[in-house]
Amino acid sequence: MSTLNHPTIDDVHIAAVRIAGRIHRTPVLTSSTLDAELGAEVFFKCENLQKVGAFKARGATNAVFALDDETAACGVTTHSSGNHAAALAYAAGLREIPCVVVMPSDTPEVKVAAVRGYGAEIVFCTRTDRAEVCARVASERGMTVIPPYDFADVIAGQGTATLELIEDVDRLDVVMTPVGGGGLASGTCIVACALLPDARVILAEPAEVDDAARSLATGVHQPQVADPDTRADGLMSALGVLNFDVLREHAPRVVTVSEDDIVDSARWFLERMKIVVEPSAATVLAAMRAIAPELRGQRIGAILSGGNTDFRWLDA
Amino acid sequence: MSTLNHPTIDDVHIAAVRIAGRIHRTPVLTSSTLDAELGAEVFFKCENLQKVGAFKARGATNAVFALDDETAACGVTTHSSGNHAAALAYAAGLREIPCVVVMPSDTPEVKVAAVRGYGAEIVFCTRTDRAEVCARVASERGMTVIPPYDFADVIAGQGTATLELIEDVDRLDVVMTPVGGGGLASGTCIVACALLPDARVILAEPAEVDDAARSLATGVHQPQVADPDTRADGLMSALGVLNFDVLREHAPRVVTVSEDDIVDSARWFLERMKIVVEPSAATVLAAMRAIAPELRGQRIGAILSGGNTDFRWLDA
Repeated sequence: MSTLNHPTIDDVHIAAVRIAGRIHRTPVLTSSTLDAELGAEVFFKCENLQKVGAFKARGATNAVFALDDETAACGVTTHSSGNHAAALAYAAGLREIPCVVVMPSDTPEVKVAAVRGYGAEIVFCTRTDRAEVCARVASERGMTVIPPYDFADVIAGQGTATLELIEDVDRLDVVMTPVGGGGLASGTCIVACALLPDARVILAEPAEVDDAARSLATGVHQPQVADPDTRADGLMSALGVLNFDVLREHAPRVVTVSEDDIVDSARWFLERMKIVVEPSAATVLAAMRAIAPELRGQRIGAILSGGNTDFRWLDA
Repeated sequence: MSTLNHPTIDDVHIAAVRIAGRIHRTPVLTSSTLDAELGAEVFFKCENLQKVGAFKARGATNAVFALDDETAACGVTTHSSGNHAAALAYAAGLREIPCVVVMPSDTPEVKVAAVRGYGAEIVFCTRTDRAEVCARVASERGMTVIPPYDFADVIAGQGTATLELIEDVDRLDVVMTPVGGGGLASGTCIVACALLPDARVILAEPAEVDDAARSLATGVHQPQVADPDTRADGLMSALGVLNFDVLREHAPRVVTVSEDDIVDSARWFLERMKIVVEPSAATVLAAMRAIAPELRGQRIGAILSGGNTDFRWLDA
């Protein structure tokens, strides 16, 4: 038995009310070409079209607006150079509270500029002392740390993507998301279990960074893969502790996918669906194709997690 | 006074009913970054997410389903190597009737494959005898020619994009579309004039192929620009005769845009809005930026005409 308090479907419903109007209700897109290829019906929830270009806007906005006024007024902080950093800066900007993002000093300028563009202050660190620097900022300035995934309000916020998907699309047999730190994956499991008890949840993970697959297969939380060689830069984190605990309870299947298949899938979204998905998001299509025979005849909802990419993989 | 019969708003309403369920009702997307840049509110109608990746699916589907059963059974034909070819093949496939597309023999293989993929037969021609070959096919096989823009049922079909946009977004002050042959532009004028009489229609045209701007400025139908050097390959046609007549009546403004601004705009959609628009569609953003001061405070609806591109401009 777990001793951790898991977010519940009620928390996700509360999050949905809290963030409504503060983020986009993203569209669900379909492709008859893909449906013909798979012999299935696929519904893509387009979080690449979300505020800041990723589902991360949901969790960060929920966490920031869940704070009481006094706590919020002191501001929020996190360490991230990716979508969560931009999302937290965005949410803090909406609430008009201070936000400090701790980033390694070798973070690409474009990512620094994006977070600054949302109004956050940047504090640089090394690759190894992020957590310490962030904790120091929090303690010195009285700020609340909002972690990227290992945090109940963040998980509940990410769950709202699947909640909307289920509201918009009837009778899903399968719900698919990528898995990295596990915020989206665990939020999705909580919602699917409560509202679609007969549906399967399938997670897509790069084979190069397959700690979630191994953690769930062994029942033991596996450490972060060192120096993973994956283009899915949003999925390099190891599962969070709370996230692992939620996932272990729901036991979703994990399908690992190759780098070539991730790139082919990302390219397919550009060329056929006319949308930009980051390689991390393209993993769900790569996973569908990997297990296509068993998806035949099914109605599949898949969360396209984000669209922030430099397109370098396009030349691959 | 014109002696041509113009399509009316009633024709557009009939088209909307006829094509409903046969094409996508495309989403309307917004960008708070762009709104802040322009000091305006912009609503993009995403026809790049339409069937076959372009608004052309609307006009072709309306024209094909407007045929009586006996005429339709003999099939349809057109000459085009672009989006209209794919759209007509798509619509004919839906109605399960024969379709012949006449294309120059030097058409890139990817475009040939796309049209074949929708089930059409290809007949090759030279660059100069397209119309003759198409007429011969029509006469020998008893097929109906469905032209890409100079045709009332096509114009009425294209008008449905603006009809949906107006249904989804209140109080538009400005409606913008690209202009090439003029099918989308004239359909848009008809709808805006009927339903938004106080709104302005603004057309975006590449400076390299500015025959519509000159035609409307002079009141004389200008010939096709020879060998235009534009990346907006969907806008190289001269205005059609009926299209020019409709546009002359409504007198929309035409804003011409540079190739650099077209490419910058297309890139902006990829990087910021996470959607693929072809350079022809990106002209509307380039035009907004060109006249930004006078759009301040306005609510602008803009049709993103298509998303079919080889991305070669991305390296520019």
